[in-house]
Amino acid sequence: MADPKQPTDAPADPAPPPESGIADAGAGVDQAMAQALDADDRGRARRLFRSLHYADAADLLERLSPEDRARLVNAVRDEMPPEVLSELDETVRDHVIEHMGVEDLAAALVELDSDDALEVVEELPAAEQQQVLDAIPAGERTLIEEALTYPEDSAGRLMQREVVTVPTHWTVGETIDYMRMSADTEKTTLPEQFYDLFVIDPARRPVGTIPLSRLLRSRRPVPVTEIMEPEMKLIAVTTDQEDVAFVFRQRDLTSAPVVDESGRLVGAITVDDVVDVIDEESEEDIMLMGGVKADDLYRDTLATTRSRSAWLLVNLPMAFLAAAVIGLFDASIEQMVALAVLMPIVASMGGNAGTQTLTVTVRALATKELTPTNAARVVGKEILVGVLNGALFAALVGVLAWLWFGNPTLGLVMGGAMIVNLAVAGLAGATIPLLLLRLGADPAVGAGVFLIMVTDVVGFFAFLGLATLVLL
Amino acid sequence: MADPKQPTDAPADPAPPPESGIADAGAGVDQAMAQALDADDRGRARRLFRSLHYADAADLLERLSPEDRARLVNAVRDEMPPEVLSELDETVRDHVIEHMGVEDLAAALVELDSDDALEVVEELPAAEQQQVLDAIPAGERTLIEEALTYPEDSAGRLMQREVVTVPTHWTVGETIDYMRMSADTEKTTLPEQFYDLFVIDPARRPVGTIPLSRLLRSRRPVPVTEIMEPEMKLIAVTTDQEDVAFVFRQRDLTSAPVVDESGRLVGAITVDDVVDVIDEESEEDIMLMGGVKADDLYRDTLATTRSRSAWLLVNLPMAFLAAAVIGLFDASIEQMVALAVLMPIVASMGGNAGTQTLTVTVRALATKELTPTNAARVVGKEILVGVLNGALFAALVGVLAWLWFGNPTLGLVMGGAMIVNLAVAGLAGATIPLLLLRLGADPAVGAGVFLIMVTDVVGFFAFLGLATLVLL
Repeated sequence: MADPKQPTDAPADPAPPPESGIADAGAGVDQAMAQALDADDRGRARRLFRSLHYADAADLLERLSPEDRARLVNAVRDEMPPEVLSELDETVRDHVIEHMGVEDLAAALVELDSDDALEVVEELPAAEQQQVLDAIPAGERTLIEEALTYPEDSAGRLMQREVVTVPTHWTVGETIDYMRMSADTEKTTLPEQFYDLFVIDPARRPVGTIPLSRLLRSRRPVPVTEIMEPEMKLIAVTTDQEDVAFVFRQRDLTSAPVVDESGRLVGAITVDDVVDVIDEESEEDIMLMGGVKADDLYRDTLATTRSRSAWLLVNLPMAFLAAAVIGLFDASIEQMVALAVLMPIVASMGGNAGTQTLTVTVRALATKELTPTNAARVVGKEILVGVLNGALFAALVGVLAWLWFGNPTLGLVMGGAMIVNLAVAGLAGATIPLLLLRLGADPAVGAGVFLIMVTDVVGFFAFLGLATLVLL
Repeated sequence: MADPKQPTDAPADPAPPPESGIADAGAGVDQAMAQALDADDRGRARRLFRSLHYADAADLLERLSPEDRARLVNAVRDEMPPEVLSELDETVRDHVIEHMGVEDLAAALVELDSDDALEVVEELPAAEQQQVLDAIPAGERTLIEEALTYPEDSAGRLMQREVVTVPTHWTVGETIDYMRMSADTEKTTLPEQFYDLFVIDPARRPVGTIPLSRLLRSRRPVPVTEIMEPEMKLIAVTTDQEDVAFVFRQRDLTSAPVVDESGRLVGAITVDDVVDVIDEESEEDIMLMGGVKADDLYRDTLATTRSRSAWLLVNLPMAFLAAAVIGLFDASIEQMVALAVLMPIVASMGGNAGTQTLTVTVRALATKELTPTNAARVVGKEILVGVLNGALFAALVGVLAWLWFGNPTLGLVMGGAMIVNLAVAGLAGATIPLLLLRLGADPAVGAGVFLIMVTDVVGFFAFLGLATLVLL
């Protein structure tokens, strides 16, 4: 029974059963495939794999254990749908390609659109990349090699080369006839899928865009210049993909023209490519905030351990610095062991409050909502929020500490340290990402580690220092 | 001078200066507007605002201080472009609407597409919502009221009602003629922008989709059933928007048909709406991981303080629990104050390693890459990564502790606690989100707070417990 809350391939009508071929790929397929592979039944594995939509096939390959994945790829390597390759996670794709071999890979790539093929080729190690390129026919190869000359993660890598262009003097009727004619001749240059036409001047500079739906709603004699959208965002071929995604989101675009240094149209970026970029960019932010270099779900244990240890190594001196601050007050702790018991509370509350500020700040920088215009106001607000929540939790924590250890002054000291630490947490949470950005780094990179160092050091110092002054 | 790495409205050609009207909205506009508002020059403020693209106008309103924003809205309230409203952040929109008044708001909403108007109306408080709806003409009002009956964040709220449908017996030529004819008559039912046509059977059930570009590339006599894509994802009207976004991403869709319980086509969701959902959902994950309820960048200090304090309040008992664990060993700390100095290092390293695992796990759940098929394998791998990094840092930290306090046994104890804590951090980081999901909560909600509680408690207990057993 299909869950009505889930998207289904078949109508939600309970009467007719879902058609077999397009049923949702789920746990059932995983089990059936595992059984077929365990039984070494290559024929059944091939049939099962062939019945899947390419996106579901890619997901299945990702979920399988490395051993099962290798067995499946060996069974289907000569009929791997090319779209599966561009859908795969990078680590899994490397693994799949390793078992496919250069020839089957090149054969699959030829069938892909040039930007999808590029996506696979650009991630290959240099030696393999050359081998695969050599196995691809010259026409396709030239397109890929040209695209590879643009910087990584630039508009030039994202764009389709095939664009539908229309001269300024054409009418709607001429445009439609031209498209139909191109389709009738064998050697069509129209892209497989497109959403907008670009009106260009004689120097091939874009002067307007026409959504296909507007073209279809217009009468044949209307000139294209009358229905085109003259206000458009031109994307330079070297623009970073993050900025491309920002423009698409801000302007709700479906495609945008890409131009070279002289303003000539060289390609177009479509929204489906941008959806992937948006995903990648927010994943990058999430990963960097969490102290992970990249999504390592599919990497093996050793590679994951190595990549994670790099971040832990950055944290280590910070942790020792916080410990050294405690070491300054060892005499105080010896006199009053309650200080050692309570000090992590001050540090922990500061760390949490600072992380809240940090999260909002990093996100606001990513969405370009935090700018020089409002930065001072945001930092000021965050400090004030820290002071206010500091006062609130100072009262709460102070009373709890008093009740626990029967010492009202200890409660006062803890409350004072709490206010100081939460105010500093607000300041640090808002300024660390701004400082990282100023230094040319990603505002999320290591921000959490630096923040916790600040809130630990300040928390321990304020609490133990105040205690030493007031209590002992 | 335009930065060539940034998208620009004007050709990147250095020769012709950017046309004034479509220049990039940046710091210049912010300054000019602030000056106009400070000088109380309403005419200049209006002219400046009118010259902006609606997306840039919305961004400007967001960046302004609340006082300047109120002054600007009062100056332009009778000519507020309706698209600005649907682009605004929710908090800022509330503020703008407050200063616009019900009548100007209703007048603006009528000009919007029904799904964009809905987006503004659904966020209004109940009383204001009724007032605004009453001020909207009956036709438009019915569409909005119907959409409001669907659950929040469901496909029914996202979809456009206006869909272009084609019966199965039509040809390409008939379809194109029908669209042109609809456009010629005054009362067109075609949506403003669309990317696909839906082929329906007599019961209005979708049987296939046709991308517009494919229609334009086909010859007139070809039957639509021959060029349609029969494999499509039908979206139930109650489907959660997160699942809608997943399907669009997985299948690279530009639109998808939405059906009611009986499988009849009731609307369509297009990729531009889904881009916003993808943004919202990844923002939600980032915010929840950071212990923030929602993006509160534009909220005032008191509202922000209140909403943030809720999370800090959850953290408080966890912090006291960790303190209580230390309290168990106060006698040991009294004997050897070095324990108090070193214990935060063990906790901090565990917290960092656990956060790495947590981040990867939460993200893998959001992208549906973590499933029952591979959950056990992922948890096992994370524990192993924890043990391996635990061993690495046990050696490092052990030696450092030995050198610092001249006590090799103290180094050994610390190393042992480090291995235990990093293994538990891997286990907790991978299982906390899975447990939250099983309990019906968002896997990111409070995950960080619970994780740090586990790594603090285990870190302190393992270190102080081992020390008490071995050292004292």
